[in-house]
Amino acid sequence: MSIVLSESEKKIIIDSIRDIKDFPKPGIVFKDITTLLNNKEAFALLMNHLEERYRSYDLDYVAGIDSRGFIFGAALADRLGIGFVPVRKKGKLPGTTICEKYELEYGFDEVEIHIDAFNNNHEARVLLIDDLIATGGTAVAASKLVCDTKSKLVEVCFLLNLEFLKGKQRVEEVAPVYSILDI
Amino acid sequence: MSIVLSESEKKIIIDSIRDIKDFPKPGIVFKDITTLLNNKEAFALLMNHLEERYRSYDLDYVAGIDSRGFIFGAALADRLGIGFVPVRKKGKLPGTTICEKYELEYGFDEVEIHIDAFNNNHEARVLLIDDLIATGGTAVAASKLVCDTKSKLVEVCFLLNLEFLKGKQRVEEVAPVYSILDI
Repeated sequence: MSIVLSESEKKIIIDSIRDIKDFPKPGIVFKDITTLLNNKEAFALLMNHLEERYRSYDLDYVAGIDSRGFIFGAALADRLGIGFVPVRKKGKLPGTTICEKYELEYGFDEVEIHIDAFNNNHEARVLLIDDLIATGGTAVAASKLVCDTKSKLVEVCFLLNLEFLKGKQRVEEVAPVYSILDI
Repeated sequence: MSIVLSESEKKIIIDSIRDIKDFPKPGIVFKDITTLLNNKEAFALLMNHLEERYRSYDLDYVAGIDSRGFIFGAALADRLGIGFVPVRKKGKLPGTTICEKYELEYGFDEVEIHIDAFNNNHEARVLLIDDLIATGGTAVAASKLVCDTKSKLVEVCFLLNLEFLKGKQRVEEVAPVYSILDI
């Protein structure tokens, strides 16, 4: 396993992801990663790659974005023997939080993080992870939250980058970005 | 690490969980597991225990309940080298689903699973996991969903069981239950 996935390894992961037409609304093709997760070879290949890449990053925490980011983020934190931190939709975290608003197609949404999520360690090195980046609204807001805790946001990682929506460039204004598959 | 946690190991996990008063509403004391997750020793201890227990169960999939069940469930599936399946709140899964309604204090809620979540393998051995069992409404509904896919629900696992609410007994009518901490 190299730190860069080979074309054949990428193909195994891409082939395990299912396209669902017209979800959540007509005209959208939804990338369904549940068929990657329930495919033990594809899931292990992905996790091996993430572990291999981030083993050398000297991370203290992986933060995952609600809620598919929890899946990859928790498994990666566990592999690296470090802590996991959830970034959640508004109203889900019970402690004192900081909050970031972001624009949707119609209206606004908000994400939150516990103010002491990284145990008030301003030297903490944090990776933020989510399954997919589209326009990047949630990821930019989540990235700002990690920065607002005063910890160090080392990188933001996505399994899938929908290139034509240019969300990756928006997140790159806040932190370095790594996307495994650009489609 | 034994298959049963020692009292000192249980204490490390219990001490890492934070009580938040009056969340989500006045009079409720919320068990905040985010302080377990961001404590690398407590998180690793818990995951070691889960791996040790379930290594011998010959499981094919871990199913996690939306959304804190994703955290423990995905990390455990990854450790066991098997697939992970999300049981989600209604409207989140893009493919063809089966759905189970359950009663709340006021009104109803619904959980869903993809009908092909276990790859239509009726021999598949499935563990269902969530962080906490209170009255058991969600867990009973999620357990029924796993059974409705015709796969084998081997056990339902919770980190925390709030004993006085007697939810564990309700889930035991559907499948065996293991709770790590009864409080």
